[in-house]
Amino acid sequence: MSADRRGQTLHGGDCSGTLLDFSVNVSPLGVPEAVRAALAEAAACADRYPDPLCRELCAAIGAAENVRPEFVLCGNGASDLIYRAALAIRPKRAVVTAPAFSEYEAALALADCAITRYPLRPDNAFRLDADFLNVLTPGTDVVFLCQPNNPTGVTVPQAFLFRVLEHCREIGCRLILDECFLGFLDCPENFTLRGKLTQFPNLLLLRAFTKLYGLAGVRLGYALCSDAALLEQMRRCGSPWSVSGLAQAAGVAALRAGDYVRATRRLIARERPALCAALRGLGLRVIPGEANFLLFQSPAPLFDALLKRGILVRDCGNFHGLDSTWHRVAVRTEAENRRLIAALREALCEKRNVL
Amino acid sequence: MSADRRGQTLHGGDCSGTLLDFSVNVSPLGVPEAVRAALAEAAACADRYPDPLCRELCAAIGAAENVRPEFVLCGNGASDLIYRAALAIRPKRAVVTAPAFSEYEAALALADCAITRYPLRPDNAFRLDADFLNVLTPGTDVVFLCQPNNPTGVTVPQAFLFRVLEHCREIGCRLILDECFLGFLDCPENFTLRGKLTQFPNLLLLRAFTKLYGLAGVRLGYALCSDAALLEQMRRCGSPWSVSGLAQAAGVAALRAGDYVRATRRLIARERPALCAALRGLGLRVIPGEANFLLFQSPAPLFDALLKRGILVRDCGNFHGLDSTWHRVAVRTEAENRRLIAALREALCEKRNVL
Repeated sequence: MSADRRGQTLHGGDCSGTLLDFSVNVSPLGVPEAVRAALAEAAACADRYPDPLCRELCAAIGAAENVRPEFVLCGNGASDLIYRAALAIRPKRAVVTAPAFSEYEAALALADCAITRYPLRPDNAFRLDADFLNVLTPGTDVVFLCQPNNPTGVTVPQAFLFRVLEHCREIGCRLILDECFLGFLDCPENFTLRGKLTQFPNLLLLRAFTKLYGLAGVRLGYALCSDAALLEQMRRCGSPWSVSGLAQAAGVAALRAGDYVRATRRLIARERPALCAALRGLGLRVIPGEANFLLFQSPAPLFDALLKRGILVRDCGNFHGLDSTWHRVAVRTEAENRRLIAALREALCEKRNVL
Repeated sequence: MSADRRGQTLHGGDCSGTLLDFSVNVSPLGVPEAVRAALAEAAACADRYPDPLCRELCAAIGAAENVRPEFVLCGNGASDLIYRAALAIRPKRAVVTAPAFSEYEAALALADCAITRYPLRPDNAFRLDADFLNVLTPGTDVVFLCQPNNPTGVTVPQAFLFRVLEHCREIGCRLILDECFLGFLDCPENFTLRGKLTQFPNLLLLRAFTKLYGLAGVRLGYALCSDAALLEQMRRCGSPWSVSGLAQAAGVAALRAGDYVRATRRLIARERPALCAALRGLGLRVIPGEANFLLFQSPAPLFDALLKRGILVRDCGNFHGLDSTWHRVAVRTEAENRRLIAALREALCEKRNVL
């Protein structure tokens, strides 16, 4: 197994269907039927240029999110928007947590930004606590946070996030809050900062269709922000036609698939505690995440041993603050989760015999 | 009619099908049937992350282009690659022609690059001549050229392009040669610099599926270059998942649709001279382009008068070196081209009566 299969660049690279993929955090229910139909229909007129302003989609997102359509900027996946934000803001100094989604740092590096990593500690269950405010000193231009955090699944209390946001405003700093996994939480409304957009132009929210609607191969995300100048600058920081016509059609169709989201959320709410208990039953250290994935630590790296058994998990060795004894697994269907647990049991047994 | 409908950002923005769109330069034959089928199939597994390295597609492009797969970098449309190239190279000084595709300058501006515009003159039929070498002085980091040029359709003789390439190497400059419309020429092989890739690592070719295969709504382009370090840097200058799984499937299917390309090329070869003659028959000044579009000048701007008649053309007012008396029209099917000519006749008649 080549090393790059472990890393984030190639996560979920197996499209052959022979591996059971727990390494990516998308809905286990697959592409919504309505989206599949919309994609097939859109394919017929794919010789037309996409609307660079994504007007129909922005209107639909605005209605669904209860925000003004002009607060919405669509991108070629949320990761496209991370790069555009870094290029548009050109921050000199940024704060990220460790661990966090690695694209924040990759994008900030492209903007030649100095990065301060705030360590989230395993002995504190990777929680963000009040001490975090102390690193947000004047001169900090941007803070990236993720709610719930990837790869830990840990949430930040809404009230504390709001304190961070207020503190950021005081020091002239933007808060880029990645809410790409928010939709998988039991009660997303209790965790989002969406209601603060109008009042706080320094807040930029990131959302994705990729995960919640099972559209990782389509590429579609969006930013929400009340700072029109920033969104306009982000628009200029890359191709004007970055969101394909297919993605725009898929997004509009997905927003009508409310049943699909409710079914996904029900499944995650039921299976996450079960999977967590089963992992703990194997003696693994499981972080109490609330997202559609779980982070756990084992006495030894298990990536290869699981791969041998047809299971792909996310080796967390390339996350700052973690190593290859940490693994992230998606919450999938009951039957799939059972296969994971069975493979884990074997892999752990094998490791014990070797050690 | 809002001003932005004239501009490049919104060109071809009419997806309602009520307008006959001559403003975009895509194949008039629509999405190839095989690609449509491949897109529908890919939609079913669109919950998988795309391969960030586009390995299958790069291998297919390499085979089709007779270049090594590692010389190929795929992007979210050729325009994505223009931005990545500018961000990866970070040139201090660049040369572009005027007129040229406006995205070159937009991308260079993002990299804070000083731009020298080399004017192509209408009285010289917008040809690039030997004098061009004189602006390529030491300190020039990048030259953008387009073969055939957009919006003029004019080609540069292969031998002269090669001289430019050699000259660029001498002064330590990269030549970014946009060959996105090359496939529409009668004999593309007589105009490409593809054969020079191995020998000249300072050459970066840009190609698109968008135009030749009628896939503007899918977003897929690629760069060809023998400088592995540059391609790797371009890969880092944006999201790793920029090419959707749908686009990768479409690209692989398109490369097998040789008949479609031959039919498109035959149609253009037959209709371009006919359209050119008809435009000249109306007394318009037509630039002798060789691509799948023609640039012409009329005594007065015609955009609005044509729009009123259900025809969308490209108002060239926002190209440097042109104004709104210049119009670019795609070469489409015989029947469609006739509708254009009829509408133009009416529009010109109306203008004459007004003047």
